[in-house]
Amino acid sequence: MNSDGRLIAGIEAGGTKFNLALATGPGDIRAEERIPTTTPDETFARVLGWLADAAKTHGPFAAIGVGSFGPVDLDPASTTYGSITTTPKHGWQHTPFVSRLRAQFGVPVGFDTDVNAAALGESLWGAGRGLDPVVYLTIGTGIGGGAIVNGRPLHGVLHPEMGHVQVPVPATPGVVDARNQCPFHDSCLEGFVSGPAIAARWGMKTETIPAGHPAIDEVASTLARGLVSIIVTLAPRRVILGGGVMKLPGLIERVRSSVVRLLNGYLQVPAILADIDRYIVPPGLGDRAGVLGAVALGVRALP
Amino acid sequence: MNSDGRLIAGIEAGGTKFNLALATGPGDIRAEERIPTTTPDETFARVLGWLADAAKTHGPFAAIGVGSFGPVDLDPASTTYGSITTTPKHGWQHTPFVSRLRAQFGVPVGFDTDVNAAALGESLWGAGRGLDPVVYLTIGTGIGGGAIVNGRPLHGVLHPEMGHVQVPVPATPGVVDARNQCPFHDSCLEGFVSGPAIAARWGMKTETIPAGHPAIDEVASTLARGLVSIIVTLAPRRVILGGGVMKLPGLIERVRSSVVRLLNGYLQVPAILADIDRYIVPPGLGDRAGVLGAVALGVRALP
Repeated sequence: MNSDGRLIAGIEAGGTKFNLALATGPGDIRAEERIPTTTPDETFARVLGWLADAAKTHGPFAAIGVGSFGPVDLDPASTTYGSITTTPKHGWQHTPFVSRLRAQFGVPVGFDTDVNAAALGESLWGAGRGLDPVVYLTIGTGIGGGAIVNGRPLHGVLHPEMGHVQVPVPATPGVVDARNQCPFHDSCLEGFVSGPAIAARWGMKTETIPAGHPAIDEVASTLARGLVSIIVTLAPRRVILGGGVMKLPGLIERVRSSVVRLLNGYLQVPAILADIDRYIVPPGLGDRAGVLGAVALGVRALP
Repeated sequence: MNSDGRLIAGIEAGGTKFNLALATGPGDIRAEERIPTTTPDETFARVLGWLADAAKTHGPFAAIGVGSFGPVDLDPASTTYGSITTTPKHGWQHTPFVSRLRAQFGVPVGFDTDVNAAALGESLWGAGRGLDPVVYLTIGTGIGGGAIVNGRPLHGVLHPEMGHVQVPVPATPGVVDARNQCPFHDSCLEGFVSGPAIAARWGMKTETIPAGHPAIDEVASTLARGLVSIIVTLAPRRVILGGGVMKLPGLIERVRSSVVRLLNGYLQVPAILADIDRYIVPPGLGDRAGVLGAVALGVRALP
């Protein structure tokens, strides 16, 4: 699946910034922009302005794709389809994307979560190319997961909220705050290993954690607990880990060895056991996984 | 999707018994049989004999569906596609189903795990009708999970092994053996709440646990932990719980309330929060979920 040379506008809508791109695919990005997330009105004005300018310079786009922070309404039968819904982010509750963009530009608009967008981009063009299912997990300010299953992004009663898989409580000596940091749960993945949770747990900023610090081993083993649950549930052919926390030195290597150790030979799957370095991987599209994922949603929205 | 009136043979291959049916669907079961699982040769001889006899009596069948205990090889490109692979069940390692049945009867053979079959049957004809994704979990001698996602049974690097989702360690006073009973894992769902695990944990047979016994609350809350992880990963529109353990008095009601309590308002989804009695349900096809699921696999295998 590709855009057949048609330009696509991609919008990665994040809680702190919007990443925009005009592209036909990862090898042909004509323009990019980053806009801070302020109020919906101000942010939208800048997004719409940039898209209009970019179209003037580079030619019209045939579709728009939006990968958004959530929760979002993905039910095409709903009157609020294509909106952010009950987000805790001030001012952004019930913010429509799809209807606004369609009205403004008159082109098809693809819409999904930021992480389903990244999963789609990775499955089309990145580390998950040609594989199904593919799981994309971002571990940063929060933890989110998306997946492509049987050819399409995964959603149902809502979209996946993989940050809230339940994990055994880690018990590492030396933590300054052992509580799960999720305001809703007592033992979910996000409450132990999101960036802010790690910072609270260890009393230090994630970026300052040095190689070899015990926090890294704990993050790896807790993250591996969550990944094992996701792996035995979805049976992904590839697991892609993005987000700021994954920049901790040596983390991905330790996650891999923890996953193999936790599975403990139960799954006799060479693609996991003998090839773990290619099974759990960073995004093939690097820091552009999100915005190119949004472009991929636009490609899918083409008639 | 239905068989258009054509007869389908369904084989639910379990570790203790095989259930067989000749049917066009749940409302039209022409013949049924139950065969104990002994050696592969003996069991197959009886299965093939019954199918041949049933076809003589009721007319030829147009396809066969097999839902099997596992692990099984579901990769159509594999030379061992359609076989049981590394099962611990004595004598059943590397037992081919599909090739044997195709050779014998010359009809298309659909093949999947027992729980993916049940998920398919429930999604076609039972409690998951018209919904997607649908999850089917059986809690019995072991715990297995299957799912229909984006229209098709879920598999990838292997098939789902949802019994091995990681859960926080339950800490109920009064258990006689607190260890996780899974030979592979220290904190998986199956190791705490399969039938044998409950029996070991509480020192009594599951069937003898009376209403109101603390074991039932513990099983409910541990099972709910696992279900929350499965729900936030797959976002199913319905969760169907089968298997012998679910016959514990009051269990499903307690599972429902535990799931709502654990989610703790994080997912603002009326279909879950306001309608939990219709969200987590027993199989609509009752004890025939497995064998009718196998029939459903046969329907899908029709050209």
